[in-house]
Amino acid sequence: MMTQIESARSGGVTQAMQCVAADEHVAPEAVRDAVARGSAVIPANPAHANLRPAGVGRLLRTKINANLGRSTDTSSIENELAKLRLALDAGADFVMDLSVGTDLTALRRAMLEASTVPLGTVPLYETLNRCGGDVARLEADVLLSVIRDHAEQGVDFMTLHAGLLRRHVSLAVRRRMGIVSRGGAIMAEWMADRDRENLLYERWDEVMDICRRHDVTVSLGDGLRPGCLADASDAAQFAELDVLGELVRRCRDAGVQVMVEGPGHVPLNEIQMNMEREQEVCDAAPFYVLGPVVTDVAPGYDHITSCIGATLATQYGASLLCYVTPAEHLGLPTCDDVRQGVMAYRIAAHAGDVGRGHPGAREWDDAMADARIRFDWRRQFELALDGDEARRRHAGTEDDFCTMCGRDFCAMRTSTRLRRKEEGGAPS
Amino acid sequence: MMTQIESARSGGVTQAMQCVAADEHVAPEAVRDAVARGSAVIPANPAHANLRPAGVGRLLRTKINANLGRSTDTSSIENELAKLRLALDAGADFVMDLSVGTDLTALRRAMLEASTVPLGTVPLYETLNRCGGDVARLEADVLLSVIRDHAEQGVDFMTLHAGLLRRHVSLAVRRRMGIVSRGGAIMAEWMADRDRENLLYERWDEVMDICRRHDVTVSLGDGLRPGCLADASDAAQFAELDVLGELVRRCRDAGVQVMVEGPGHVPLNEIQMNMEREQEVCDAAPFYVLGPVVTDVAPGYDHITSCIGATLATQYGASLLCYVTPAEHLGLPTCDDVRQGVMAYRIAAHAGDVGRGHPGAREWDDAMADARIRFDWRRQFELALDGDEARRRHAGTEDDFCTMCGRDFCAMRTSTRLRRKEEGGAPS
Repeated sequence: MMTQIESARSGGVTQAMQCVAADEHVAPEAVRDAVARGSAVIPANPAHANLRPAGVGRLLRTKINANLGRSTDTSSIENELAKLRLALDAGADFVMDLSVGTDLTALRRAMLEASTVPLGTVPLYETLNRCGGDVARLEADVLLSVIRDHAEQGVDFMTLHAGLLRRHVSLAVRRRMGIVSRGGAIMAEWMADRDRENLLYERWDEVMDICRRHDVTVSLGDGLRPGCLADASDAAQFAELDVLGELVRRCRDAGVQVMVEGPGHVPLNEIQMNMEREQEVCDAAPFYVLGPVVTDVAPGYDHITSCIGATLATQYGASLLCYVTPAEHLGLPTCDDVRQGVMAYRIAAHAGDVGRGHPGAREWDDAMADARIRFDWRRQFELALDGDEARRRHAGTEDDFCTMCGRDFCAMRTSTRLRRKEEGGAPS
Repeated sequence: MMTQIESARSGGVTQAMQCVAADEHVAPEAVRDAVARGSAVIPANPAHANLRPAGVGRLLRTKINANLGRSTDTSSIENELAKLRLALDAGADFVMDLSVGTDLTALRRAMLEASTVPLGTVPLYETLNRCGGDVARLEADVLLSVIRDHAEQGVDFMTLHAGLLRRHVSLAVRRRMGIVSRGGAIMAEWMADRDRENLLYERWDEVMDICRRHDVTVSLGDGLRPGCLADASDAAQFAELDVLGELVRRCRDAGVQVMVEGPGHVPLNEIQMNMEREQEVCDAAPFYVLGPVVTDVAPGYDHITSCIGATLATQYGASLLCYVTPAEHLGLPTCDDVRQGVMAYRIAAHAGDVGRGHPGAREWDDAMADARIRFDWRRQFELALDGDEARRRHAGTEDDFCTMCGRDFCAMRTSTRLRRKEEGGAPS
């Protein structure tokens, strides 16, 4: 078996590439060339039976990912499956299972069966559980066997924190907020305790063997992503990014698809620079960003604070947006939080695609404008990102105005009347 | 009596300027100079008894305005007063009463009494009511007398649609969505029906007399603001903007404070250009923007679609942000919609202020980061934009982790432990 990138390099257009090309109205050869170059990836593990392949990269529509999964403390398999279904219904393009705790194999199997979109994991979490929850007992062999298990089970992409090296730890502890990535913090403590190099970085060739065999797309984790505006764009973040750039090349050399994870918390005026720097350092590998949040002051509203950053990130270089829910910084998201997060991120992805002039993106907006000026409420609800919500709020009026301005003060009624007069040759 | 701009030009620092300077931690002379130059305004009608003066301009913190008021069809005075109190509690810096219908004098009196922040109106709405709701019967004399009544009552700023001229109407009707400003549509129909010039433009000197006498700040309405992405930055919008630039100069010549209203619906990649163009054409008059919405496809979520645009607008030149609520395009906002709108816009104003490097803005974020790494939940709730919402979501844990990751996988716990080890001379 060849991976997507190997097939593309050999000139082949795979079924997955054809599927992506058809969904996105681009030529199959364009998809193939982007995959061959590494500027697009198609995370599609052949063992994920009911997957509909989807691509990530600047050639394609910007995608959004919903993080799911239970913490040690709360939530059941049933609850997480309900969130998964809700995320898919709401329009998530990718999902990740970030569960920790016991019974992870069964939960992941259930989620893979239920998911028609690419599913990702962070193998380090299960590894820590298998090592008794104690960082001191973490072993590279166990981590490699977890990666192998996930790959065999059908996981399409995996976050691997391989770029945070021993020498970065002293940079990280000096920060205002230190390390806020779960995987990054575990890796850093392990390295510091043993005074050893990153275990994934040391065993990278073996990781590559597994990923190549199952066509698992590597998502290079940013263990040093900033956790507050003050830590954004600092020496720690960019030192790790340079290693991620090196690992991108090693993935591609090994015939493994790769994308790169990014910040986090970034002030508005630094987002463009961050996107451009990643594209340069990582040779145009698809950038998978978490937000970024553009202010730290609004817990409870971080779907909004981060959606602002994600829209700008899309404009300037991101290809996959990891949603943030209103529960961020406070607790595990509820079903409603998942829905709010997906909706905010669909807005970010689309508004960003419009902003960067992605072919066809603006047609959706123009169709909505046409429905609005015609007072065609039914069509507006059909076109709406969330038709149910729009219908609920419209409160039943099916007439040529809404309760916002009332009939006499409806600008669109007046404007339409005016247009008829002007076109009909009224005094001009 | 001198207006604020006249006092500033004569070198005087008024009480209002001192109040603004103290609130914003800038020198009173800097406020005076900005007011004299016209790059800041302090809408403070001396007849608005319990007003705490607030300033608008790039020298100052970006402000947000909440639109209130009832349409002809729904809502009572009590309901609108409840929304006003809610908007003030939530942190609105300015409010506008956009009510139409009968009993407007009583409603406005009640709102002025209840409002400690500057209150604005759109006199054209009441004028249309006084003329029987029929655009054909609209008369300039009635409009001038309404402006006078509002000024005498204590209104601090008024939206006047004086820049939309007869020659612009043909540009407007050719657009995808025509005219979506209520005031703009009324003016355009009136001009087209009578084949006359804009009645406010023709009587501008009389308008100036009233505004100067009561120090009413003019907010030049953008009757041709785009109502969809397709109409953004078009010939109609910029033709009107040129006239607004001319009117800015006429206001300043008359000793009247002035700001300029702006779009509306603008794609992400055109926001910077729009902000810079206004600043140039209108000689740095404070720009008061409505959003802008960056995609048309998400009715029910337009507090988010517009908050994205408003943040970017703040980065590039806006000084006052008019909120948009989730009810936009669908109906009149409820109390909860007002709250959602204010919160989204406080995020936009602050994140934009951080992005543009406004002095002191980032301190709030840094304080939150410090509280987070210390697991000081009480302090986080104190600092939070909406502490009640954050507290509600945190679900009671007062410990050194939250339910998002659980105790064992909390990166901040791991990171703090690591920092102690590294600082304590653990293996390095």
